[in-house]
Amino acid sequence: MEIHGVKIDDTYAEAFPAWVSSVIITGATRELAYRSAVEATGFATSVIGCAAEAGIDAYIPPQRTPDGRPGFGILIVHPKKKHLKEQLVERVAECVLTAPTTAVFNGMPDAAEKLPVKLHFFGDGYEYQTKVGDRSVWAIPIMGGEFIGEEEIGVVQGVAGGNFFVMGESQMSALIGAQAAVEAIMDVCGAVTSFPGGIVGSGSKVGSKKYKFMNASTNELYCPTLKGKVPESKVPEGVKGVFEIVIDGVSEAAVSEAMAEGIKAACMVAGVKFITAGNYGGTLGPFKFDLHKIL
Amino acid sequence: MEIHGVKIDDTYAEAFPAWVSSVIITGATRELAYRSAVEATGFATSVIGCAAEAGIDAYIPPQRTPDGRPGFGILIVHPKKKHLKEQLVERVAECVLTAPTTAVFNGMPDAAEKLPVKLHFFGDGYEYQTKVGDRSVWAIPIMGGEFIGEEEIGVVQGVAGGNFFVMGESQMSALIGAQAAVEAIMDVCGAVTSFPGGIVGSGSKVGSKKYKFMNASTNELYCPTLKGKVPESKVPEGVKGVFEIVIDGVSEAAVSEAMAEGIKAACMVAGVKFITAGNYGGTLGPFKFDLHKIL
Amino acid sequence: MEIHGVKIDDTYAEAFPAWVSSVIITGATRELAYRSAVEATGFATSVIGCAAEAGIDAYIPPQRTPDGRPGFGILIVHPKKKHLKEQLVERVAECVLTAPTTAVFNGMPDAAEKLPVKLHFFGDGYEYQTKVGDRSVWAIPIMGGEFIGEEEIGVVQGVAGGNFFVMGESQMSALIGAQAAVEAIMDVCGAVTSFPGGIVGSGSKVGSKKYKFMNASTNELYCPTLKGKVPESKVPEGVKGVFEIVIDGVSEAAVSEAMAEGIKAACMVAGVKFITAGNYGGTLGPFKFDLHKIL
Amino acid sequence: MEIHGVKIDDTYAEAFPAWVSSVIITGATRELAYRSAVEATGFATSVIGCAAEAGIDAYIPPQRTPDGRPGFGILIVHPKKKHLKEQLVERVAECVLTAPTTAVFNGMPDAAEKLPVKLHFFGDGYEYQTKVGDRSVWAIPIMGGEFIGEEEIGVVQGVAGGNFFVMGESQMSALIGAQAAVEAIMDVCGAVTSFPGGIVGSGSKVGSKKYKFMNASTNELYCPTLKGKVPESKVPEGVKGVFEIVIDGVSEAAVSEAMAEGIKAACMVAGVKFITAGNYGGTLGPFKFDLHKIL
Repeated sequence: MEIHGVKIDDTYAEAFPAWVSSVIITGATRELAYRSAVEATGFATSVIGCAAEAGIDAYIPPQRTPDGRPGFGILIVHPKKKHLKEQLVERVAECVLTAPTTAVFNGMPDAAEKLPVKLHFFGDGYEYQTKVGDRSVWAIPIMGGEFIGEEEIGVVQGVAGGNFFVMGESQMSALIGAQAAVEAIMDVCGAVTSFPGGIVGSGSKVGSKKYKFMNASTNELYCPTLKGKVPESKVPEGVKGVFEIVIDGVSEAAVSEAMAEGIKAACMVAGVKFITAGNYGGTLGPFKFDLHKIL
Repeated sequence: MEIHGVKIDDTYAEAFPAWVSSVIITGATRELAYRSAVEATGFATSVIGCAAEAGIDAYIPPQRTPDGRPGFGILIVHPKKKHLKEQLVERVAECVLTAPTTAVFNGMPDAAEKLPVKLHFFGDGYEYQTKVGDRSVWAIPIMGGEFIGEEEIGVVQGVAGGNFFVMGESQMSALIGAQAAVEAIMDVCGAVTSFPGGIVGSGSKVGSKKYKFMNASTNELYCPTLKGKVPESKVPEGVKGVFEIVIDGVSEAAVSEAMAEGIKAACMVAGVKFITAGNYGGTLGPFKFDLHKIL
Repeated sequence: MEIHGVKIDDTYAEAFPAWVSSVIITGATRELAYRSAVEATGFATSVIGCAAEAGIDAYIPPQRTPDGRPGFGILIVHPKKKHLKEQLVERVAECVLTAPTTAVFNGMPDAAEKLPVKLHFFGDGYEYQTKVGDRSVWAIPIMGGEFIGEEEIGVVQGVAGGNFFVMGESQMSALIGAQAAVEAIMDVCGAVTSFPGGIVGSGSKVGSKKYKFMNASTNELYCPTLKGKVPESKVPEGVKGVFEIVIDGVSEAAVSEAMAEGIKAACMVAGVKFITAGNYGGTLGPFKFDLHKIL
Repeated sequence: MEIHGVKIDDTYAEAFPAWVSSVIITGATRELAYRSAVEATGFATSVIGCAAEAGIDAYIPPQRTPDGRPGFGILIVHPKKKHLKEQLVERVAECVLTAPTTAVFNGMPDAAEKLPVKLHFFGDGYEYQTKVGDRSVWAIPIMGGEFIGEEEIGVVQGVAGGNFFVMGESQMSALIGAQAAVEAIMDVCGAVTSFPGGIVGSGSKVGSKKYKFMNASTNELYCPTLKGKVPESKVPEGVKGVFEIVIDGVSEAAVSEAMAEGIKAACMVAGVKFITAGNYGGTLGPFKFDLHKIL
């Protein structure tokens, strides 16, 4: 299979179940909402070493937010619901409640299950309940004015670890291909790429052959500089750069759409040569995203 | 005392000792380095609820980085050295090693003390030692190419919690004043503002009068909407917005300079009326930054 | 009439007919497309002193551009079709053809009338015709690779000079209100705000009382610092800042929607007090946008 | 000669004398100053088709601007002083005076020669003279508050058309190399890159062989897709992308430094293969920048 001259490998991405919550952060301006969303989704690339995975899902213009101000939807993700709840509370408390002019709303009002985010105790008794449209919120007097927060945030069983690899004739071809992919995924609702700029520069394998204390180590079979030095390198001839896109989403459909749109966009970039995906032979994750089927 | 017609309160900011490490993150482009720096300093506003405090110190042009590529200097801060070390390792491993095209260097080569950041085990035996200029680094083969990392990062005893309050005739006057302050502080070497966009919208007091389980709660004496409702409000007549700037730095001098430059910049904004600072009567922190003295 | 506590003046904005062309600029990444769009719409605030008015209409994700790459739609506007044609050619030739990785497509393929933008002569005979989807384009060999350009760009009779004024209790309240308005307008299809950041800081009147050689001069009736100094000042009591939003669009409906969405967003900002609009008593422009009717 | 493994051609860039004026634009925030600077330097890539060449020289922090607010220095460039004067006035009047919160100052107070930019007539008699530090300025009442402008702007005889070509093993390697070069040049004082994002994607030759009405056309000798199709192609073996950086500056020294720093930064990017420069055999421009000498 080829898209725009780029070969698509006949393989699948293996992914895992995870709990996903969705928060809308609004602010007086787009920039103010963005700064808070960036802080709240920071240090959240992979649960291998971070307390959660998180990313910005979408910009939401004033016309479509609960309070008529510009906002961003973010996703916070963890395999365990208890950990997700803790992270949700801490990230909203430390990165949104503290930010200038921001407010918080439930990003999935239709979700059957909700997690409590009880910020109103911060008000020390000066807080009060009110409404924004049809949403029940707490208003907390703060130095900057009043903080408005909805305290029940929707959570669903979603998918973590959807992925594909962009390979290029040069490191920079693969990188720009990966950037184009991330930009396409930004427009897919319900899916985020949690790594810096959405791109993984150092895709890993589980464990380590040499250092037994390591949970993860470099995936030498996909390292261009090790081609010819390791047996059975999976780096195709003529490929000098490989970048991985990892996707978390609210549903199998969202991750599938994100993978498809991301791959199509990457294939439009000059010098992108090959697209494949990572899996563990189907032994680990229950979700399989077959590249040829989703495209 | 007045600056550009803005009254400067005759008071001081109280601050605390903390360990501060400094990392330089470079990338193929400024944007790539920036994305990694933002991720590495995310979810790090206050140790009240975050595992560390962190911020971007400065952009460093290619002319002045160890590897001749654009970079950013970041500071990671924690009162306890053991916690700082853990956070330093995790943040560099998860947010810089994983990022596309990035490299890591020691931001304080002259610091007497260094913290180890041993990323090279990620190389699973394929890593090797080399030099960038006069710096000893490890090169780790990764999918994107090779990751270069210096593994000893300077750490010093610095200062956390330097602060001042910007008060304005309207919420937005105080906010723009605070933004101008943050922009001035960006140009002060060795000082960061760890909150979203550098600004605290909801300054807190220690503990809570009503909810005993809370470590911190709204500082009602500085809330404009509570003026007239709480006794002894410290919001001056005609003030409708108060934003706090909190500064961490490598030294008392750096925090002092950051406070001075930030206050001067805030005072240039139309509608800024009053500058003060937060302290606990000198009972908590050993550092006192007297506003009139530093200006 | 009030929106979120902000009084909406019972008046109308007067606007004028103008020719409007729409161009889609795509690039390898969103940033590359954006840089070209910004250059192509620069120095284009008002035809009082610029050769055209222009602005970025919308970001278009890879999923929805002709060539599957990220792009921006821009509008270029002039009352006279001949001038618009010249400006369209020059701006595309100098700011898009010259930019790295960009391509050009007709942003209004359904427009009955088209303007020619014959860039292919730049190919000096090495150019050739091809297709992108169902669009006929020229491919021009360039240093960076190949430039792809559609050479017929749709043009319609639209509207220039739609406007409203945001007034605030402080300069900064009005400014943030105006920013929120611009951000809402960005999401309205077919309408742009051509001034820097979308905001006019120095709204003008036609001509000058004192300096007869001036085509336009400060609108003293709306200057807060002249309240009490000029007779019949139109600055309401308690207003210290006034910013104007000027809107050009492809149709009366687009400008009307942009005005409505912009005003609603401005009214959500703390300290915004009053919204009005500019007109010349209906003597100049055939279009009248009654604020109460459009909201 | 090689830098970081990249071959530097033994040739020179040929450049031309031009008049260069320097303006400092400040604003309440960095973003507000930036928006105005971008508009004022837009549609200004090349005097082949634009009324001037222009670019942002440097960000200037509040600590170092005349009015203690964040600002940007811009350069406006034209071979003819009369044209420069007209463009300087129009660009400042339409893109800075109109912008929210901005002020204008002379960026080269030490220049022997000055151009008048008499904006104060816009005040219609309500304007008045005052001082900002030791600078004489006019204050003009406007809707947003007061516009502050210095009305004599320094102008010097500088250099236009300094240049070099970045060639890469792939289109994207050359592009990222060119981006790195532009980022290095941003830190060189007194030099700008006027093209979109600082990069030329379609470098040209003077005139056209086939279309006699064209002043400039594609430089087929440097087009990678024409290698093997045109005799004497100058595209080295293995090169698939060529981007040009064009530099205007206040002096031969500034352009020389910008070229040197830009080339060094480009050479740090993986896949960059060759650096050369454009000249016309020395017949046109009096300035010759020998690559080996300046590095």
